[in-house]
Amino acid sequence: MGEVERAGGFASRVAAAVAGSGPLCAGIDPSRALLGQWGLSDDARGLRQFGIRCVEAFAGVVPVVKPQVAFFERCGSAGMAALEWLLAEARTAGLLVIADAKRADIGSTSDAYAAAWLDPGSPLCADAVTAVPYLGLGALQPMIDLAGAGGRGVIVVVRTSNPEGRTVQEALTRSGHGPSVEDLLLGEISELNHSSQVPPGTVGAVVGATLQPSQFPLSRLGGTILAPGVGAQGASAADVAVLVRGCPPGTVLASVSRSLLVAGPEVRTLASAARQARDELAEALA
Amino acid sequence: MGEVERAGGFASRVAAAVAGSGPLCAGIDPSRALLGQWGLSDDARGLRQFGIRCVEAFAGVVPVVKPQVAFFERCGSAGMAALEWLLAEARTAGLLVIADAKRADIGSTSDAYAAAWLDPGSPLCADAVTAVPYLGLGALQPMIDLAGAGGRGVIVVVRTSNPEGRTVQEALTRSGHGPSVEDLLLGEISELNHSSQVPPGTVGAVVGATLQPSQFPLSRLGGTILAPGVGAQGASAADVAVLVRGCPPGTVLASVSRSLLVAGPEVRTLASAARQARDELAEALA
Repeated sequence: MGEVERAGGFASRVAAAVAGSGPLCAGIDPSRALLGQWGLSDDARGLRQFGIRCVEAFAGVVPVVKPQVAFFERCGSAGMAALEWLLAEARTAGLLVIADAKRADIGSTSDAYAAAWLDPGSPLCADAVTAVPYLGLGALQPMIDLAGAGGRGVIVVVRTSNPEGRTVQEALTRSGHGPSVEDLLLGEISELNHSSQVPPGTVGAVVGATLQPSQFPLSRLGGTILAPGVGAQGASAADVAVLVRGCPPGTVLASVSRSLLVAGPEVRTLASAARQARDELAEALA
Repeated sequence: MGEVERAGGFASRVAAAVAGSGPLCAGIDPSRALLGQWGLSDDARGLRQFGIRCVEAFAGVVPVVKPQVAFFERCGSAGMAALEWLLAEARTAGLLVIADAKRADIGSTSDAYAAAWLDPGSPLCADAVTAVPYLGLGALQPMIDLAGAGGRGVIVVVRTSNPEGRTVQEALTRSGHGPSVEDLLLGEISELNHSSQVPPGTVGAVVGATLQPSQFPLSRLGGTILAPGVGAQGASAADVAVLVRGCPPGTVLASVSRSLLVAGPEVRTLASAARQARDELAEALA
């Protein structure tokens, strides 16, 4: 991917990839349980082997993969080295990668997370990273700026479907007279994407697929919508379609992890499960 | 620290350490700027040397150190290996360590973060880890449970002093009729610490030192209060004293990073700066 194409911003890179191979983001979640089910060792070596199989199965079948960083961090620096290796393999295979790291901080610490995940010189550099807005969207600005400069993205965790998350995310801003936290954030993301501050589509949002549509219309986000929760967490392709009704083509990535990964460890069956999930989603979102 | 003492819970370990050497938590923030000021290389080797000097300077002078994980992650897996090494050195030197990682997730991913930072078999295991509650306090339960089982702690980022953070943290829960997000969380933390679910004092809170006192009285938290923002961010020892008025002795750790670290790279001057900051805080909080 040349710098010229990158200048179009992260969302247009995603849209081009989705146009090629459908709206599925395949999670790479090497939990202890899945490593065991795949007959792999519960260590950095097992993580690498899990990664090889995922890249082999998903390349050319889905446009985007999403390694869950916690499962690599669980094995310390050796696990993070396995993640670096996976990122390089996925890039070589032509897959876009969203590092699901859910990072958050302020000031120079936010700079450091930007450098870790979005600087092309970093071994952990991905096409996009997920971030958590408890310290405000403004605190993530260093990540957003660095992402924008390289055609990369920051995907902000805005609405999660777990019940404990609802209390925080539905709280009303401005002494109870403003929009909910999640609607405010969606609005702020939309403003950024439509401003001249960053290339359009630099900032995306994570919106749980099991939720009802938000008050702020997702069709106005101007960035990639990552919708996890399909499969094991109970959402169907049809639920995603309702959630993102009216969104421009190529802006939605439904993310499937566990219910897909149980089709491993065979690369053939894993690829076939990904193809099926992708086609179901493509049909529901058409 | 034997398992018997651990059974007292993280807060009592902190209180014992504070009784020995004062209420200061020394930040270990090897930013690019500080590495340069210390004449160290901007790589994993520089991170290690920065860590050596901090442990030498702070051991016996302060009770707790707080490495900022982002600055290690910036150098990828090699940086994380430098952090593992620092954690081991700090432990050997008798320092308690709070890994400032601000992690957050749900379900099995939250399990994985718990395993990374709070499982004694992990190379990244610390005495406590910071966590972000955007997905609700309940989402952090796997971290809290594992922490409690080992006399370790989870310190939840509740109130941050950056202006963008206020919008989210001051939002009103329950359709605007409930407490603010931050007061609700402080209440939930207090409940957990006073329940039989975890050893008392397992869950702490990060409360910015530049803020006004919260509506929920911090004296009822039942866990460690980590107050960053002293020094470079503008809070004084007297500000901390106002913020935590009425809190039991040993429950407060004021965290100082940049304004302390600029006293390096000489171990002698760094130790002397830590001693001075510690004594000022001890006097203000007496």
